[in-house]
Amino acid sequence: MTAENRMDRMIRSVAHVFDWFGDGAYARHHLDPDIADFTFGNPQELPLPGLVSALQHHAVPQDKDWFAYKFSEPAPRAVVAASLQARTGIPFRDEDIALTAGAFGGLGVTIRALCDVDDEVIFLSPPWFFYELMIASSGATPVRVRLSGPDFALDHDAIAAAITPRTRAIIVNSPNNPTGRIYRPAELAALARLLEAASERHGRPITLLSDEAYNRIVFDGIEFESAAQHYGPTITIYTYGKTLLAPGQRVGYAALNPEFPDREAVNYKIFVQQLAAGWGFPNALLQHAMADLEALSVDIEALQRRRDRMVAALTEMGYEVTKPEGTFYLMVRAPDADDMAFTERLAEHGALVLPGAIVESPGWFRISLTASDAMVERGLEAFRAVLR
Amino acid sequence: MTAENRMDRMIRSVAHVFDWFGDGAYARHHLDPDIADFTFGNPQELPLPGLVSALQHHAVPQDKDWFAYKFSEPAPRAVVAASLQARTGIPFRDEDIALTAGAFGGLGVTIRALCDVDDEVIFLSPPWFFYELMIASSGATPVRVRLSGPDFALDHDAIAAAITPRTRAIIVNSPNNPTGRIYRPAELAALARLLEAASERHGRPITLLSDEAYNRIVFDGIEFESAAQHYGPTITIYTYGKTLLAPGQRVGYAALNPEFPDREAVNYKIFVQQLAAGWGFPNALLQHAMADLEALSVDIEALQRRRDRMVAALTEMGYEVTKPEGTFYLMVRAPDADDMAFTERLAEHGALVLPGAIVESPGWFRISLTASDAMVERGLEAFRAVLR
Repeated sequence: MTAENRMDRMIRSVAHVFDWFGDGAYARHHLDPDIADFTFGNPQELPLPGLVSALQHHAVPQDKDWFAYKFSEPAPRAVVAASLQARTGIPFRDEDIALTAGAFGGLGVTIRALCDVDDEVIFLSPPWFFYELMIASSGATPVRVRLSGPDFALDHDAIAAAITPRTRAIIVNSPNNPTGRIYRPAELAALARLLEAASERHGRPITLLSDEAYNRIVFDGIEFESAAQHYGPTITIYTYGKTLLAPGQRVGYAALNPEFPDREAVNYKIFVQQLAAGWGFPNALLQHAMADLEALSVDIEALQRRRDRMVAALTEMGYEVTKPEGTFYLMVRAPDADDMAFTERLAEHGALVLPGAIVESPGWFRISLTASDAMVERGLEAFRAVLR
Repeated sequence: MTAENRMDRMIRSVAHVFDWFGDGAYARHHLDPDIADFTFGNPQELPLPGLVSALQHHAVPQDKDWFAYKFSEPAPRAVVAASLQARTGIPFRDEDIALTAGAFGGLGVTIRALCDVDDEVIFLSPPWFFYELMIASSGATPVRVRLSGPDFALDHDAIAAAITPRTRAIIVNSPNNPTGRIYRPAELAALARLLEAASERHGRPITLLSDEAYNRIVFDGIEFESAAQHYGPTITIYTYGKTLLAPGQRVGYAALNPEFPDREAVNYKIFVQQLAAGWGFPNALLQHAMADLEALSVDIEALQRRRDRMVAALTEMGYEVTKPEGTFYLMVRAPDADDMAFTERLAEHGALVLPGAIVESPGWFRISLTASDAMVERGLEAFRAVLR
């Protein structure tokens, strides 16, 4: 495969997203002052005051190197390792933490560090918008495993059937965007066993890329467990962009399990890919602020309250709705099965949502709970009106 | 070529840099409180107060989208286009400006957007540390054209000889790191003519990547002229990291000339590569601050004064020294031709410099003028002492 094909495949993998983004209901309506915008996980209220004060505080230089070139610096690495240790019980090491420009950066550099044009990478559908893009950017072949709604559970048999001798990695996203599912310890343990068996059979380990962007956005007191707690060859990928609801300030990490195979070599490959990505380390200011950022969060209870309000109201109106266990999102079945047409009509009534077709879920649409309470109430009016 | 080969080539291209960075004189001495550190273009004094106040001011949100996902946003794009128009007289368009995480990001995404495994990319040696890495990351083949010291002028015949039907792009860095040379209008015009002839001959345009990270760090009242003023298929790449002396806050751009061939398609490819790089757009805070950043600069006169002080003092001691026309750097001939050994001895006497071998200039070493005045004086003592 040539790089020209790689570029073509990359473009093809995002065409449906940007065609819709440029021409769909979102483009025509998102600037309306009265629109109820449930499209993306973007803030609909002012940023967290704690974030603003952290940025201002750490903008004041303490030494000459304050804004000098920064790699993955020791102090923020230690903050991350301590956080991961406390959350998982795994003795993560500072030197196994690559600080990245968000989870986007973490996914890209780890996939490109690990994967070859002869490799395959499995992802689960409905997926995040850009898994295919990131896999294609490495030259590897994306392999899709479809999960079925409305529960969108891990399908171990389908995953096992998708594994070949060329499988180099699998991306597992829990809590899941867009389905809101949190994979439970027993599901993760069974996944680990099948990956171990397949790795053994094919003579090389399959890496599990655990995309945990939403691992602190969890409802109903569910205890989140990481795939890293079940499977050694795991890389945990995180962004502070969700917990802070500030995705324009890019900071996150990719962390290798202590028993990750060939750990030092993989760390170095990730480092070189971070250089090639364009100095893919978080900005100096964000690294200085890391301990403060680690302690901040959007109001999870408010998100859960909005979820409950919307699930109850939409169900009462006759919609089929998932009840997400975490993340910002809930999925709703389009009443007439045509999510694109329904999304257009809904926009005319004053509410924007993401058509499921954009995330390989035709017949569904996705609602982001990052809306304000007032927007939720306005939006519910639109959901009611469009049914008339 | 497989991606595994790509990763291997990427690692090989930087091995000499990081072997030295990890084990050389810099690693052992740069934390000594009395060391005179001339190694990198990193700050040796506190950051610009204007930068600190800009970051603090623009950290205060003006709307709910303040820290939302940011692409290349309209307002900072307009700031950049106006700046480029004023500097070059070229009618750059806002939509041809890709805002990037520094010049590193700009180089990476443009090379990967343009280049194929069957392509070659020419770069001039002595080069910046990471040109080969960035070219290798696209799968293309790096082709080196050596320039000769002490003047390190553009060698048009050597460039012409290096061009083949596979040449897709050439990277030209002026003002040049490490040589301090600024290529003059006549040199650039002659380069443009030879690239035009070769593009015509081979039936596809050779892109000129004009790496202008230092285009505002210019001495002696020389008027900097961009390659973009001479050659249509040029992409101008800039970072604010040098002018602000704050390379840990990543912001810059890649700008297509208005007459760039197939402009819209190339812009879109760059955009997709920015996504794949890990959301390779500058952080929201830096985009909000762009108009302020554009107006800020380190003290160029102080840099010129330090250059003059060092050139005069080192020449008087018997060193052969280049007189840079711009950038942070001057090149000095190692007295015994072994720059690695000399650098080690110099470190023992209290001054750190970059061995020329790290930037393909064995027999030379590089001095960064970002040192403080006091450090310059301490350093000169070391340069004197090591000769005894």
